[in-house]
Amino acid sequence: MQTAPTYPTTRNLSSAPALANVLRSRRQRLAETISFPVLLWSGMAKPRNFAANLYPYRASSHFLYFAGLPLENAAIRIEGEQLILFMDDATLDDALWHGPSPSRADIAQQMGATEARPLSDLADLAVGTATLGEKDETIQMLEQAMLQRGIVLPRHQPQSNQVLQKAIVQLRMIQDEGAIAAIRQAIAVTVAAHKAGIANTPAAKTEAQVRAAMEAVIISHDMACAYGSIVTVAGEVLHNHHYHNLLSPGDLLLADVGAETADGWASDITRTWPVSGTFSATQRDLYDIVLAAHDRCIEAAQPGAEYADIHQLACLTIAAGLVDLGILSGQPEDLVAEDAHALFFPHGVGHLMGLDVHDMEDLGDLAGYAEGRQRSDRFGLAFLRLNRPLAAGMAVTIEPGFYQVPAILNDPQNRDRYAHMVNWERLEQFADVRGIRIEDDILLTASGCEVLSLDLPTAATDIEDLVCSTSELG
Amino acid sequence: MQTAPTYPTTRNLSSAPALANVLRSRRQRLAETISFPVLLWSGMAKPRNFAANLYPYRASSHFLYFAGLPLENAAIRIEGEQLILFMDDATLDDALWHGPSPSRADIAQQMGATEARPLSDLADLAVGTATLGEKDETIQMLEQAMLQRGIVLPRHQPQSNQVLQKAIVQLRMIQDEGAIAAIRQAIAVTVAAHKAGIANTPAAKTEAQVRAAMEAVIISHDMACAYGSIVTVAGEVLHNHHYHNLLSPGDLLLADVGAETADGWASDITRTWPVSGTFSATQRDLYDIVLAAHDRCIEAAQPGAEYADIHQLACLTIAAGLVDLGILSGQPEDLVAEDAHALFFPHGVGHLMGLDVHDMEDLGDLAGYAEGRQRSDRFGLAFLRLNRPLAAGMAVTIEPGFYQVPAILNDPQNRDRYAHMVNWERLEQFADVRGIRIEDDILLTASGCEVLSLDLPTAATDIEDLVCSTSELG
Repeated sequence: MQTAPTYPTTRNLSSAPALANVLRSRRQRLAETISFPVLLWSGMAKPRNFAANLYPYRASSHFLYFAGLPLENAAIRIEGEQLILFMDDATLDDALWHGPSPSRADIAQQMGATEARPLSDLADLAVGTATLGEKDETIQMLEQAMLQRGIVLPRHQPQSNQVLQKAIVQLRMIQDEGAIAAIRQAIAVTVAAHKAGIANTPAAKTEAQVRAAMEAVIISHDMACAYGSIVTVAGEVLHNHHYHNLLSPGDLLLADVGAETADGWASDITRTWPVSGTFSATQRDLYDIVLAAHDRCIEAAQPGAEYADIHQLACLTIAAGLVDLGILSGQPEDLVAEDAHALFFPHGVGHLMGLDVHDMEDLGDLAGYAEGRQRSDRFGLAFLRLNRPLAAGMAVTIEPGFYQVPAILNDPQNRDRYAHMVNWERLEQFADVRGIRIEDDILLTASGCEVLSLDLPTAATDIEDLVCSTSELG
Repeated sequence: MQTAPTYPTTRNLSSAPALANVLRSRRQRLAETISFPVLLWSGMAKPRNFAANLYPYRASSHFLYFAGLPLENAAIRIEGEQLILFMDDATLDDALWHGPSPSRADIAQQMGATEARPLSDLADLAVGTATLGEKDETIQMLEQAMLQRGIVLPRHQPQSNQVLQKAIVQLRMIQDEGAIAAIRQAIAVTVAAHKAGIANTPAAKTEAQVRAAMEAVIISHDMACAYGSIVTVAGEVLHNHHYHNLLSPGDLLLADVGAETADGWASDITRTWPVSGTFSATQRDLYDIVLAAHDRCIEAAQPGAEYADIHQLACLTIAAGLVDLGILSGQPEDLVAEDAHALFFPHGVGHLMGLDVHDMEDLGDLAGYAEGRQRSDRFGLAFLRLNRPLAAGMAVTIEPGFYQVPAILNDPQNRDRYAHMVNWERLEQFADVRGIRIEDDILLTASGCEVLSLDLPTAATDIEDLVCSTSELG
């Protein structure tokens, strides 16, 4: 009468490689770098307002990379090609409340684990392993409960933990076949979500209604949002998680929404469209500048290219465009050297993407910045999350933007510093543009890059068509 | 050009009382019970997979009750009618990433706070206050960071903390006008979500697609889900958070989905409908038994009635119905005394509802169980979450069900113990019923109760009509 649920996986397509093979290959590559055993924890669901009311569970990305399945309350020990899974079988009470679950043995087989053991065996086998010194409190609690030992604070990490962090960064930074298949699935759903959002805009009265149309696509594919959606007419608020604004015909709507597969692979796409279905002339002018930056960055993205140079290209393209429009005056190179572009484009042009939407940001800038490099504190560079040469297999976002942020533009110091570079009167004519961002996900190939989110148009007229065609239908 | 976002609130309807008045009245009623100052923490957003990727923030329910707004990183001090708000004004960096926010002074005014201070003032003013001894780790972290003192563990609580817990339970248990207005709003959205789920079933192929239709309604009203939705053809799994099953025409679909207002007020509704639009004869027979239990419990719910007796009434009604169908044999009273009904109805008939969907469950059974009462470990009563006399103003759920849980029905001990009470061959004829639950939210009135979710039908034919009418349309 009942069928035991298997863990939802995005790997059941014929084109996707078998999970056990993917994981074995990852262990083999890890073993090329390190020679000590590794312990990775899954994490536990976090309570919302009381212990039994949990947020949707998200396993640790590092665990997911080597375990492949969103297990809860589990650990894995990796040594060379060996993989030991530690988890307890479900209890009778679990079966009543949560239904039948696959056994530890079944899960171990799906993962290609070489052994499967109860959690109580872990304390002995944890001796001598390196861990990531996780900051997540549920992982710390698991570690404490299982190992009856103190939390390993980052500053007390043994040397092997730091070596492990770097080894994992090198591995995860280059996406393998399994990762790419999963990211493609997440992106396909995200593209559909954006099309639904654009299509439903004419019928929507609020940001929340457009968000609902987009997230419904993600939920209907049994995926989660990889991050808190941004769906707003106040596009100048970079991380805007309010959805209560009414839509007006003259507004631009900025939507930064991405799906995540059941096994944790992210996508991250932004589009900006006119609520009315037609860009005003001023909106179109600025949109085309952002699009030019987007296109030039994608053209320049290839193995060996410095991502900081791609960011610089976006800055120059935006500065040049704003000079053409009469908003900035001067030579683009000089303006960018003075960070004048950052008045309107204060963030970096993108970041690594993988199991995390900002991949491996839990390790600080270890993944984002090449060894020996540090974040600049310059206005125009402080928010650049990626600064290393690109390599085939990297998945990164390209997301230039133009924003009118009052906190920046009304800042007296900025008004003073940039008095001769900005034509403030001319800028006032562009008051109907609060924020524009165009973001795609690209995969570095041997000779250039592939735009993974190519199915979602970027050209202004194509975007207008997507709004209009559906508003005629509906 | 920009408008500062106000905190979304459900209190802007003309029928809803002003927030400051609601909060003042709550402080006045608290002051009738306790005479010492109280400190309540809001909490902080919790990270998902890395520090900057946060779960949607949910403030502490106790904080929300007295502060009314979902503030983050804030505290309130209550002493008599005095209310001091502690929070820091947004920084320039906040303004860049999160947009303009209302000032501490504006928020304090909206709440009717008597004072507003920065968090740095808190350490001095926390001396001598009672707290709830919160288990939430973000609240513990806040407390530690702000007060530079150790975590107050529950076992070391000063007496005043226990007195405070009981005082808050007494207050929150009886919903005031502000609470009832908010709960009604949450329920209205939940009713619409269920109607959308039923309407979209004929077009859906998977559970996830029906879930998407339901949650889209909640998102489009700028609300959150009060708990993880259950939308499943495997209704016998009581807390089922998988959505990958395909829908088959012979299936029943059980959906337990509830919206929560922006300021945290919950709703909690379950309906069960046939995927095909028509109950089979066996499904209809069992549905009508659950519905009879539901209706009788609602008729019996009135001030003074013991909730445990209402639970007992549900058990008796279900047992009698199963005797009529030939699934059980014996006298209903005897069967219930032996917990035979619990083979098919293993949970309690409902629970308190308010700011938490299981209201105040963070305090254990302090709210659910009257002083001096403890949970039974009997099979049929162990999951009863509420055992106290009902009183006007309480909001509770009524949610009887019938399930065929393999872990229960295939248990050899149960097979043996209930050998003479269950007609297992007859039961096999009802194999197309895995789980049925009908759940409504009621408010105890002076003389009886009001079904707050009355707009969502319960009768089998009405449910069938909701499926069919829309399948004809769409």
